[in-house]
Amino acid sequence: MFRLPVTIYYEDTDFTGVVYHANYLKYFERAREELLGVDRLARMYRDTGLGFVVYKVEMTFKEPAVHGDHLEVQTVVRCDSPYRVVFDQNIVRVGGSSLMVTGVVQMVMVDRAGKLVPLPEDLAAWIRQEGT
Amino acid sequence: MFRLPVTIYYEDTDFTGVVYHANYLKYFERAREELLGVDRLARMYRDTGLGFVVYKVEMTFKEPAVHGDHLEVQTVVRCDSPYRVVFDQNIVRVGGSSLMVTGVVQMVMVDRAGKLVPLPEDLAAWIRQEGT
Amino acid sequence: MFRLPVTIYYEDTDFTGVVYHANYLKYFERAREELLGVDRLARMYRDTGLGFVVYKVEMTFKEPAVHGDHLEVQTVVRCDSPYRVVFDQNIVRVGGSSLMVTGVVQMVMVDRAGKLVPLPEDLAAWIRQEGT
Amino acid sequence: MFRLPVTIYYEDTDFTGVVYHANYLKYFERAREELLGVDRLARMYRDTGLGFVVYKVEMTFKEPAVHGDHLEVQTVVRCDSPYRVVFDQNIVRVGGSSLMVTGVVQMVMVDRAGKLVPLPEDLAAWIRQEGT
Repeated sequence: MFRLPVTIYYEDTDFTGVVYHANYLKYFERAREELLGVDRLARMYRDTGLGFVVYKVEMTFKEPAVHGDHLEVQTVVRCDSPYRVVFDQNIVRVGGSSLMVTGVVQMVMVDRAGKLVPLPEDLAAWIRQEGT
Repeated sequence: MFRLPVTIYYEDTDFTGVVYHANYLKYFERAREELLGVDRLARMYRDTGLGFVVYKVEMTFKEPAVHGDHLEVQTVVRCDSPYRVVFDQNIVRVGGSSLMVTGVVQMVMVDRAGKLVPLPEDLAAWIRQEGT
Repeated sequence: MFRLPVTIYYEDTDFTGVVYHANYLKYFERAREELLGVDRLARMYRDTGLGFVVYKVEMTFKEPAVHGDHLEVQTVVRCDSPYRVVFDQNIVRVGGSSLMVTGVVQMVMVDRAGKLVPLPEDLAAWIRQEGT
Repeated sequence: MFRLPVTIYYEDTDFTGVVYHANYLKYFERAREELLGVDRLARMYRDTGLGFVVYKVEMTFKEPAVHGDHLEVQTVVRCDSPYRVVFDQNIVRVGGSSLMVTGVVQMVMVDRAGKLVPLPEDLAAWIRQEGT
């Protein structure tokens, strides 16, 4: 399981005092990028034009986070098709155990023209390895 | 069906040239706020401390939008429990017919302490009326 | 003077109850894009690779806005050099008179490689006309 | 000088391929919060209702950042009035020396009603110490 810490700043909250719901998608994505490697993703896009796009998202919000909270995004990746990568992503408070947000994000890979392509085999192999 | 136009500005896009996926949740929310009435929601929160929070989100991304696009958020609301409001929300290009993003957002109401409460009966009645 | 209405939604605020300061830069930009024409800017970028980038920003925050507020971005543009466009931008409450935020934004034009270029003459002429 | 690393993710960029200008204000703020202490700020707001608000911003954009960049926010704080704290904030590439963005942010303190108040003396003393 890959763990990414996230601190909650002013920018993350809304006037009701808690984290704005759409922002959890940003934390999920930061975690996916760090898991796969930001440098690897940036290089792949520059060199080959290939990049991941989100195909489907499911999220459930169980407990709100507030300014100053120290959260952790916990991510497990799986890849059972050359055309799809699935990330199971949960958010907990650091040192806590209860789930605050749970999500499942399905991603696919597209080329520069936006056409669906299979994952490069070395990336798919790396993900299958990571997911075990 | 409630229709809200959304124009895609620089702020909405990312370096791959298309709208950043999390931003569609913002458009969905602007549409829900306008459907329910921003003034009504602001007044209710100030006077009673009651407000909606997102409980569950499902989204599917079918076609990307780009800078300069004129989109429309199409929203249908339903309320079959005093504890939950469900919004079916789709995004299409203005003048187009194909779905770009589809979503289902479930919301619940909480008081200032974050405790789950039933919708005020007049609001629930208004929503049931709106949804027919 | 060009006027753009902005409604304050959940996404715009932070936990202190007011609009998050960086968001005013987004409203300023929406106004600049609408003043210059979103379609014109999108077309210019796609056809020629030319686009505006922000060079310098000055903002003063005088009065906070809250959820449900109906604001107006008031923009005046001037262009006294082929290399620079200056926008004087103020935010007021609709129907109000007191300034909430004032700003001056200087923009320059760059090509796809990020190199500074003079504004196309027809655009510069249009802006000089608009600013009178 | 206080240094905060910032990695550039998808969320930070726009379709022109570089970091969206308003986002630098977010990085500046994350750095100010970490410098002053997120926990201290969160506690002060909860216990006393006192919080910082931005009064004035000046920013100059010299060189763009792109997806995958590893940046550093360099912040120096000074406090020569009980009513105002000034942050000189620069952004450089990690391991680089050229300035990408420079900024000066003036902040003031307000109570829960939004009324201007002097900084608590212990906080002002801490800042004066920090700034030397």
